[in-house]
Amino acid sequence: MRRRSVAILAATGAVGQRFIQLLENHPWFDISVLAASERSAGKRYKEVCAWRMETEMPKEVGEMTVVNADLKSVKEAGDVDLVFSALPGDIAGPIEESFATELPVLSKAAAHRMEDDVPLLIPEVNPEHLELIPIQKRRRGWSGFISTDPNCSTIQLALTLKPLMKFGLRKVIVTTMQALSGAGYPGVPSLDIIDNIIPYIAKEEEKIETETKKILGVFDGERVRLADMAISASCNRVNVKDGHLEVVYVDLESKPTIEEVKEAFRNFIGEPQRLKLPFAPEKPIIVRDEIDRPQPRLDRDAGRGMSVVVGRIRNDPVMTLKYLCLGHNTIRGAAGAGILSAELMVAKGYI
Amino acid sequence: MRRRSVAILAATGAVGQRFIQLLENHPWFDISVLAASERSAGKRYKEVCAWRMETEMPKEVGEMTVVNADLKSVKEAGDVDLVFSALPGDIAGPIEESFATELPVLSKAAAHRMEDDVPLLIPEVNPEHLELIPIQKRRRGWSGFISTDPNCSTIQLALTLKPLMKFGLRKVIVTTMQALSGAGYPGVPSLDIIDNIIPYIAKEEEKIETETKKILGVFDGERVRLADMAISASCNRVNVKDGHLEVVYVDLESKPTIEEVKEAFRNFIGEPQRLKLPFAPEKPIIVRDEIDRPQPRLDRDAGRGMSVVVGRIRNDPVMTLKYLCLGHNTIRGAAGAGILSAELMVAKGYI
Amino acid sequence: MRRRSVAILAATGAVGQRFIQLLENHPWFDISVLAASERSAGKRYKEVCAWRMETEMPKEVGEMTVVNADLKSVKEAGDVDLVFSALPGDIAGPIEESFATELPVLSKAAAHRMEDDVPLLIPEVNPEHLELIPIQKRRRGWSGFISTDPNCSTIQLALTLKPLMKFGLRKVIVTTMQALSGAGYPGVPSLDIIDNIIPYIAKEEEKIETETKKILGVFDGERVRLADMAISASCNRVNVKDGHLEVVYVDLESKPTIEEVKEAFRNFIGEPQRLKLPFAPEKPIIVRDEIDRPQPRLDRDAGRGMSVVVGRIRNDPVMTLKYLCLGHNTIRGAAGAGILSAELMVAKGYI
Amino acid sequence: MRRRSVAILAATGAVGQRFIQLLENHPWFDISVLAASERSAGKRYKEVCAWRMETEMPKEVGEMTVVNADLKSVKEAGDVDLVFSALPGDIAGPIEESFATELPVLSKAAAHRMEDDVPLLIPEVNPEHLELIPIQKRRRGWSGFISTDPNCSTIQLALTLKPLMKFGLRKVIVTTMQALSGAGYPGVPSLDIIDNIIPYIAKEEEKIETETKKILGVFDGERVRLADMAISASCNRVNVKDGHLEVVYVDLESKPTIEEVKEAFRNFIGEPQRLKLPFAPEKPIIVRDEIDRPQPRLDRDAGRGMSVVVGRIRNDPVMTLKYLCLGHNTIRGAAGAGILSAELMVAKGYI
Repeated sequence: MRRRSVAILAATGAVGQRFIQLLENHPWFDISVLAASERSAGKRYKEVCAWRMETEMPKEVGEMTVVNADLKSVKEAGDVDLVFSALPGDIAGPIEESFATELPVLSKAAAHRMEDDVPLLIPEVNPEHLELIPIQKRRRGWSGFISTDPNCSTIQLALTLKPLMKFGLRKVIVTTMQALSGAGYPGVPSLDIIDNIIPYIAKEEEKIETETKKILGVFDGERVRLADMAISASCNRVNVKDGHLEVVYVDLESKPTIEEVKEAFRNFIGEPQRLKLPFAPEKPIIVRDEIDRPQPRLDRDAGRGMSVVVGRIRNDPVMTLKYLCLGHNTIRGAAGAGILSAELMVAKGYI
Repeated sequence: MRRRSVAILAATGAVGQRFIQLLENHPWFDISVLAASERSAGKRYKEVCAWRMETEMPKEVGEMTVVNADLKSVKEAGDVDLVFSALPGDIAGPIEESFATELPVLSKAAAHRMEDDVPLLIPEVNPEHLELIPIQKRRRGWSGFISTDPNCSTIQLALTLKPLMKFGLRKVIVTTMQALSGAGYPGVPSLDIIDNIIPYIAKEEEKIETETKKILGVFDGERVRLADMAISASCNRVNVKDGHLEVVYVDLESKPTIEEVKEAFRNFIGEPQRLKLPFAPEKPIIVRDEIDRPQPRLDRDAGRGMSVVVGRIRNDPVMTLKYLCLGHNTIRGAAGAGILSAELMVAKGYI
Repeated sequence: MRRRSVAILAATGAVGQRFIQLLENHPWFDISVLAASERSAGKRYKEVCAWRMETEMPKEVGEMTVVNADLKSVKEAGDVDLVFSALPGDIAGPIEESFATELPVLSKAAAHRMEDDVPLLIPEVNPEHLELIPIQKRRRGWSGFISTDPNCSTIQLALTLKPLMKFGLRKVIVTTMQALSGAGYPGVPSLDIIDNIIPYIAKEEEKIETETKKILGVFDGERVRLADMAISASCNRVNVKDGHLEVVYVDLESKPTIEEVKEAFRNFIGEPQRLKLPFAPEKPIIVRDEIDRPQPRLDRDAGRGMSVVVGRIRNDPVMTLKYLCLGHNTIRGAAGAGILSAELMVAKGYI
Repeated sequence: MRRRSVAILAATGAVGQRFIQLLENHPWFDISVLAASERSAGKRYKEVCAWRMETEMPKEVGEMTVVNADLKSVKEAGDVDLVFSALPGDIAGPIEESFATELPVLSKAAAHRMEDDVPLLIPEVNPEHLELIPIQKRRRGWSGFISTDPNCSTIQLALTLKPLMKFGLRKVIVTTMQALSGAGYPGVPSLDIIDNIIPYIAKEEEKIETETKKILGVFDGERVRLADMAISASCNRVNVKDGHLEVVYVDLESKPTIEEVKEAFRNFIGEPQRLKLPFAPEKPIIVRDEIDRPQPRLDRDAGRGMSVVVGRIRNDPVMTLKYLCLGHNTIRGAAGAGILSAELMVAKGYI
């Protein structure tokens, strides 16, 4: 397979650093351009990046010269087959559109997620939504395109809801306990979270409640019809570094046994597994039977951070079932999600 | 008012220490006997107690000689008008019964909570359940009696559900994020909770699901008929010292506005407020309007730890409403609850 | 005693909030003016302040209109007898000088601490340094003056070194473990400190090493001659909310017994105690005999946060002695220090 | 090289688990016997071990039957070439002696560390102390022997002191900030350490002060003459999972420049590096130049947890130099230390 050259927008931020870490030694992708704000442009990456990963910054990345995050600068800086955007939500919109006129843009930002002709992709869940891409290119007259990854807390939830669809998923209530790294850097002040919980994350509940319906929706050849279900989310920030833990209550039309539900989770695989994509975890969903799992620190690295771990599946006196799900928010929920999406697009010929 | 003499069972434990701290300078109660396990009996309190309160151990308490937690030893040690039991759940049952043959026992243990003739009391919520006491004394042939306080996570939930009853409370889903002190001492190992959540607390979900129905049930002159509602709980331990935070979803028959619900919370008072009991907070429920409150560290001491703080009341796409409630688990949820219960019993003539 | 009117500069910041909290119901001082940056000027305090104290914002303070932190605006806003400055170090210098032309300025900023004619005051340690004030006023031609409080980690150290001076204090090595609140707000990002230590605090070691010598120096009628001793500091940030813990090694000329050292600590009092100033703790230094104290969470509130707690005093194989000291960094180390300094100046007629 | 069969004593504890984790796929060693207390004997490892590593328990280990930790049971359970003892200090003494009558015992316990004929080994620092083994065997009439690894906080300190010996090391003052995992499991209660520091670790200061002198001592053909230096330690427990951070002050006869000291650290290697032992890190000491490193979470895994990371080397106003060192306490400080010691003994023909 021909190797692809990758540009990363917002390469010095938390998600950007995670992209760099995960792309080291990737079998298909090479980092060719690192872009960031004007302030960093022209300097070597290691001079402008406050690297915060637990592994060392790859030496050759540290020596690369950062360029400004505009199409012209990026194209001049090197070959680019695709662009990973880790831009902050408030500025991502127009910059990503500019890039998409010529290049495939895989965005972690919320700006374009809910647009009609933009995929909101989880490779195992809704790969057929990629068919929006030719529609989008035609409609917008772009030679590139934008595809988006969902919000971190939504990805792991939707992954576990997908195998429940066959039981007739009607209602979902989810309460999240989300990790600090989800807020980026510097993010949550330590004085706010020590010996404390912050029971509010701006826009997070709305994202879960709207994005999930699109992800689980049906592509009808032209657009995605939102899934017909009621979803309610309550989001909390807790004193955990990585790994969102979610308490999920679901109402199902049919009344499967706990064992049937476990089987549905365990047997769930998708296109990435069938295509043996490099970042595809062997099991998208891992079911743990211990009474007190999943736990963020113990389970977030399952499947190299790409598996979602489910546990405590039990009958519910109000809804049908309740269970827990846990995902690594900056791997499966961010940079790893983007890389898996890119792999799927390459395998399917979109890039 | 005649002062009452109080014995504390399990006086060296976490709840026992909190009783001692809160009873210092109490206008009605004097600590006359401290009881603990045989190992501590015969020694001065300050020699056997690893005091962990942030305030100093009261000097005169430190000098008291601890006695064994049996009726004979306690009676010999001093006058006793009532007994606070902070005994561990697995041994509380028979010991409390032995004391109750002669004395009023106010128990924080789970052993007797769900028995037919034993009050499960929250003074603001179900003071009429105290009428079980004469029934219990008659039936069991005791001159004393047992009254119980609910589980800590249940107390704060039930307090906030009570004012919602008038809207036709049909279903409740609650997800808790509970503080470390709820597990007693030594309790949760630090290695288990650093950078982590433990999504399981033994028997906690069952306690919430059963106790709430009894607390909100109707005393029909002979027994308490359980409230007719469905309740589901998911309980998690988080890295917070004190203060349980609960995410509550309720389904109501009538559809009150958010403002009507706030009014119901704000205006809620009970017997303790009407009787101006010493430990009664001015407001049992405090409503906060900020987008990100209540928070454990900022709100747990409201009303000197006796108020429950409610916030983020909003409409819910699946149920009717969702909101947060927070209470201090070792004050309103444990020792403070016991003291307020005792005050109510004194005021009503039961002690 | 005539009440004094107080202006607070940087009233919305962490130290400013602590000033407001501590001045509530102060017997001598009334807050008459709250000043902050231009962005907040003209608005009510409660609208611009993200209040982070565990106690509620005083109602009347919340209604006060914030003014810009310049002399003219502050004077127009109300009567002012003295000014507490909690301004950030990088801008404090010229602003404080401007105020000092007319008013007494008590500064928590580092800008003027080491200037020859400016007191660096710890009321129990060097009250005679206040005699620099008339020299300063004369030399600078001001009707007001500037007096400074030392750095938080220095105050508690110097307080414990003072009673050791009589044993011939020659060398000091101190390793600090400092609380998050010392970095202000937002301060330390939670991602940097969870499961971690940051072994560096900008300029902190230099402050300890230089300020201590001035504080313990002798006023010779004209200037302060720096104490003749060697001091070395290593400063670390740890995951604690409030309370700096310091490990101190001292080399002494005479070789006192541990008991003599404890006596020196226990018997130490200063002008604030003799004058019974409102914020003076009964004991500036509390000695604890337990093997594992002082601890930040258990001891930081001793003496309402104004006492320094000392423990584990023992002989040292390299120096003479080693011990621990702990102080509340935002009370004794910041706002409380300023208030006690002001009280001393009032009592001594400087204000 | 012939593979060696290994028995682990106290295999279910925190250090035992780390041994199992690190020995997975070891090129020289196979785990043949797992021993623990009588309570676990006869059961499968996975049934009796509350596994707490972040990686999964090796499948084949989980299926092994645990035996009682006595010589007879262990020998019956399988071939054993050497024994790793992770026994608790209070019971390790006689059990280890019993095993040593026939087998090489590598002990993590303190029981035998300071005995005259027992090596206290850090493979890079004092490999020549292994020559005590034949002396020990002869003197005690054993066909096996005991060798010990130092205390975790001592290992990393002594490793960094060794290259400073050439500058004439006279005095050392060390203040430690030690991780929770150093206390084993359940270890430190979370209620004790949240928002807190515990400034005392039983026997830790004594261990550092005595063991270091033996490790750095000279083997004279018969015994180890203790190094002639003064050492003082102050030990603190902080809220960090893994990785002890130590602030070190040293007094040196010669006055090397900072650059000379860095060179001494950087160039330091020992027998494990020369022999290319499997667990030998490329660099025993890594020098970081950033102003704020080492940090526990960022640096503890350097060299797969086997390197010690040094930083902030600077001149000291009281002693000669001060610096920081950090090591992974359960890898370089415990199980990894034992494995490296075993490798050295195999390479040198002692096993």
